[in-house]
Amino acid sequence: MKKQYLLTPGPTPIPEDILLEMAKPIIHHRTPDFQNVVKQSEGGLQYVFQTKNEVLIFASSGTGAMEAAVANLLSPEDIAIVVKGGKFGERWAEICKAFNVEVVAIDVEWGEAAEPKLIEEALKKSKAKAVFTTLCETSTGVTTDIEAIGKIVAKTDAVLVVDAISGLAASSLKTDAWGVDVVISGSQKGLMIPPGLSFASVSKKAWKLVEESKFPKYYFDFLKYRKSIQKTDTPYTPAITLMIGLAKALDRIKAEGLDDVLNRHKALALATRAAVVALGLELLAPNAPSDAVTAVKVPREIDGLQVVKILKNKYGVWFAGGQGDLKGKIFRIAHMGYMNKFDLMVAISALEMVLLELGYKFSPGVGLTAAVEALVG
Amino acid sequence: MKKQYLLTPGPTPIPEDILLEMAKPIIHHRTPDFQNVVKQSEGGLQYVFQTKNEVLIFASSGTGAMEAAVANLLSPEDIAIVVKGGKFGERWAEICKAFNVEVVAIDVEWGEAAEPKLIEEALKKSKAKAVFTTLCETSTGVTTDIEAIGKIVAKTDAVLVVDAISGLAASSLKTDAWGVDVVISGSQKGLMIPPGLSFASVSKKAWKLVEESKFPKYYFDFLKYRKSIQKTDTPYTPAITLMIGLAKALDRIKAEGLDDVLNRHKALALATRAAVVALGLELLAPNAPSDAVTAVKVPREIDGLQVVKILKNKYGVWFAGGQGDLKGKIFRIAHMGYMNKFDLMVAISALEMVLLELGYKFSPGVGLTAAVEALVG
Repeated sequence: MKKQYLLTPGPTPIPEDILLEMAKPIIHHRTPDFQNVVKQSEGGLQYVFQTKNEVLIFASSGTGAMEAAVANLLSPEDIAIVVKGGKFGERWAEICKAFNVEVVAIDVEWGEAAEPKLIEEALKKSKAKAVFTTLCETSTGVTTDIEAIGKIVAKTDAVLVVDAISGLAASSLKTDAWGVDVVISGSQKGLMIPPGLSFASVSKKAWKLVEESKFPKYYFDFLKYRKSIQKTDTPYTPAITLMIGLAKALDRIKAEGLDDVLNRHKALALATRAAVVALGLELLAPNAPSDAVTAVKVPREIDGLQVVKILKNKYGVWFAGGQGDLKGKIFRIAHMGYMNKFDLMVAISALEMVLLELGYKFSPGVGLTAAVEALVG
Repeated sequence: MKKQYLLTPGPTPIPEDILLEMAKPIIHHRTPDFQNVVKQSEGGLQYVFQTKNEVLIFASSGTGAMEAAVANLLSPEDIAIVVKGGKFGERWAEICKAFNVEVVAIDVEWGEAAEPKLIEEALKKSKAKAVFTTLCETSTGVTTDIEAIGKIVAKTDAVLVVDAISGLAASSLKTDAWGVDVVISGSQKGLMIPPGLSFASVSKKAWKLVEESKFPKYYFDFLKYRKSIQKTDTPYTPAITLMIGLAKALDRIKAEGLDDVLNRHKALALATRAAVVALGLELLAPNAPSDAVTAVKVPREIDGLQVVKILKNKYGVWFAGGQGDLKGKIFRIAHMGYMNKFDLMVAISALEMVLLELGYKFSPGVGLTAAVEALVG
């Protein structure tokens, strides 16, 4: 009786009712029924993004919307500040490079968050038009202090662009209150639906840059999407079934209430960290841990690749391993999206089992006890 | 008892077993199970594209892959020949314009196909690096003679790029035998799955241009997708559920056999035209009609917008209207993808009913009789 438990930081599990909703006979996209889907999605996204800005919806992976931000905000030879503290921070730098945008890198050790002060200094020293960073750096489980960075960037002519692909609806992100100009996100994380949709909210300050941008673009042209969304429409054939799922998922989030959704994630994250520490394991990012995913250092005496492999093959429990230099050195437990206390208890149970199996020394049950104590009530 | 019958040229109906397959709990994309999906999809696409070239798979609408072709094959200030005989031919020109590519337009009346000779002349007169055209121009129901154009372009240094978004798996397209360098397609037409995936096959001749291209790009960078597909992988998080549907849909096409699939489309198209002509209606594209969709001129005495509206609202039967200048002047019946003889009989029945209702003069049953006679056996 092997069941599958997906605890990876994207894709995340999809609620069964949403899976069935997307399995209904397909409808045409130029219809009042689909217009309702667009309207619900747009309103729901604004609610989750905590913004009054238009949220543009693309049929693409999250990376598509990241590229779109660079291509729509900047022009050749512009300068951008990029926070590089993990795989997805580095992706911002790669995209800028592909677009011949000069990168002022804020290099942060993987597992640490960027000091907002460093961004302030970089803004003073360079003529950067944009600051690119990440809400939750999926590769390390680090949360960046977007509120503090927002205050700094707001005082300048630059725009702040945040990759919230795996942070949205898991960590708090007050787009308007914190002065975030562009927020990028994707469908397959906190929003609980399959990958294939990406999003970008765009502030007034950012629209000014969009209107001046000189990069060639067509499919990801923000201006076209703004024009369409104002008519509750899409410029090209949308990913119809995914949008239907999105509207339903946003309904669920509204029904639970965004604050409660975020508190649920916070509680799961706290319990995960409590359990991991009780087991004598070390967190990769103790100083700025994410509410979406927890990265745990593999103790020297056991093989990190084995942890993930045994969990998957023997127990049907899917953690993520490390990426890049962290391969084999960490594992990551996601607690994001369609997740509750008992999903987390499964994760910690499985973790104790594999640690026992690999001969790691600990007192069986201490992780579970810590988790239960953290989650009770 | 109103049932819905989707006879629009995209999205097209999705087989029920594929809808349910996509509704299964989601799997992670960096796994052997998903690698099988990629492998099946790639092999199936090569079979349907009739090519040995790599077929690149994107999470995007078809337009995304069209832009990708321009951005990957060309460089600023290059020259391209574009066949403009409908909305999607014009889209090629718009994309080229957005990328500062000089367009040599082959203007064709909507409803007519491009004379291959005109392309030959344009190639002689210009230093065009690419010819962009359309297999089936969805807006007019015209099929272009790709075989003839392929022979002409093959003799030059230019590459031939065909938008087969709504032609693939409906009309014959022998990518390799006809010398088509890049074929673009999408998921929501002949391939019978929801929108959200697009494809590009790339020939050796085209890869040379890709390697020289100077446009900035990241998400749609062909070279990244080639590297990934050679490892049966995807560069970014793929649209997992849609790819699972794709693999199943391609299995269905293989099981039926591509020749039989194409013959089925041809038979449905012939029967549609026979019925329409028997009803005394005029085809928009009698000289080069498509096997995927049939465009029919609305007789002067009735209101074209009413035809589509009554069919939809009263009968639950979805035809498409005209686009651009053809709005209200034509309706379009798709016979593409998950469609058989009886779906077509529904279409012709509904058409007779609405024509009767709108007072169009004809002998009831003549359309149905012509269709049955064409479809028997």
